[in-house]
Amino acid sequence: MKLIIGNKNYSSWSLRGWLMLAKNGLEFEVVQLPLFTKRFYEELSEISPALKVPVLIDQIQDGQIKSAQDTVIWDSLAICEYINEQYLSGSAWPQTIQDRAKARSIAAEMHSGFSALRNEMPMNCRAKRTLALSELALKDIARIDQIWSEQMSLNTNKIDGDGWLFGKWSIADCMFAPVVFRFVTYGVKVSPSAEQYMQRALASTEMQQWLADALTETDIVEEDEAGMPL
Amino acid sequence: MKLIIGNKNYSSWSLRGWLMLAKNGLEFEVVQLPLFTKRFYEELSEISPALKVPVLIDQIQDGQIKSAQDTVIWDSLAICEYINEQYLSGSAWPQTIQDRAKARSIAAEMHSGFSALRNEMPMNCRAKRTLALSELALKDIARIDQIWSEQMSLNTNKIDGDGWLFGKWSIADCMFAPVVFRFVTYGVKVSPSAEQYMQRALASTEMQQWLADALTETDIVEEDEAGMPL
Ligand SMILES: N[C@@H](CCC(=O)N[C@@H](CS)C(=O)NCC(=O)O)C(=O)O
Ligand SMILES: N[C@@H](CCC(=O)N[C@@H](CS)C(=O)NCC(=O)O)C(=O)O
Repeated sequence: MKLIIGNKNYSSWSLRGWLMLAKNGLEFEVVQLPLFTKRFYEELSEISPALKVPVLIDQIQDGQIKSAQDTVIWDSLAICEYINEQYLSGSAWPQTIQDRAKARSIAAEMHSGFSALRNEMPMNCRAKRTLALSELALKDIARIDQIWSEQMSLNTNKIDGDGWLFGKWSIADCMFAPVVFRFVTYGVKVSPSAEQYMQRALASTEMQQWLADALTETDIVEEDEAGMPL
Repeated sequence: MKLIIGNKNYSSWSLRGWLMLAKNGLEFEVVQLPLFTKRFYEELSEISPALKVPVLIDQIQDGQIKSAQDTVIWDSLAICEYINEQYLSGSAWPQTIQDRAKARSIAAEMHSGFSALRNEMPMNCRAKRTLALSELALKDIARIDQIWSEQMSLNTNKIDGDGWLFGKWSIADCMFAPVVFRFVTYGVKVSPSAEQYMQRALASTEMQQWLADALTETDIVEEDEAGMPL
């Protein structure tokens, strides 16, 4: 498999695709394209008409058709569902119907919403900034705090939990990973149990590795540089 | 099952949830809450902390836990995945791995993107309007035209197709249904094969029924009244 991503420092959606593969121990090659450059659009246009990263390219055998063919998946949530189905026998969503329905609701809510948070607080892993936020962005933050704390309060009751939103790591955690980096960058204060979740996520090997890689990057993407340095 | 939706004339995300249930012949009760009213937020707050429609409430038996409990799903894409898994044995996505990966990419691309189109062209089924669009909205339209025409050109080669994006109706069609109504309202011109897709969708019993219901509604939601009457 090949995963095409943008700059690790800035590309929030790329982080999700990458985490899904890395966290599940799958073998894959990373191709990095610098965001918003001519090269980015030129190379992507040959692969995905949506012209966005991440893009997963997989060479699979379809049992029914018996043809080997590249499969191109060009959205982070679609990549998660694909990997879950094709390589993980469904284990990347919670295993009970109720939890799975809730995890999918949270993941899809994240995927389709929170536009104020996205616009005002671009992911910028290496930076520490201060920022004046709009009402709408504050509402987005409050809703995320609510989701995280609610899940963490449930988790305390689980015997085999591992500190993630549904006990064990799931696609829901994948979807929120970029928000964790955003909250660190802009010094967002959340309630204690949400903070505990953030620390859990930040401490994971994969988040640490992504951050370390991001810190080696030197490109500056002006449109993603928000706020005043601390 | 109970599906909570907003005004049929305006609520684009509700249409998706409703179509998924109606198109698949499932039995469900509809609860309508008028968008953006005090009652809307009051009643929703007891059901779903995301405070958005559609919301699906299902009383299921979880085999593993053996408890009967209401399951609440509060996002249109999550509702589609849930219904597909729980009631349709997966038949609402295309059946080959390649097609399913593509359908999920398209659906999730729609779910997370096209913000210019969403903002500038609110769904307003009963209206016919003219509108000056931004560059970004025009780009969104072009991308949708591209998706529809590409799928329709492939479909012509399928023997058992039924005129939908992947031959037979799928969740991908669910996700684009609101855009079909939007394009009619604002008189958007698309390429011939995309137009053929629009006509196919519009002619379906469920889209006709939704439209007929919308035409009986009289509430005006000011924030969704864009453009000049034709
Ligand atoms: N729905 C897509 C969105 C991906 C997306 O917007 N990616 C950004 C980078 S983080 C991008 O490629 N932007 C380039 C552009 O918009 O021109 C996903 O979930 O993967
Ligand atoms: N991600 C959600 C979005 C739902 C959504 O935004 N619904 C609108 C009505 S079409 C809503 O409830 N708006 C009320 C509000 O935003 O206060 C989904 O796919 O269902």
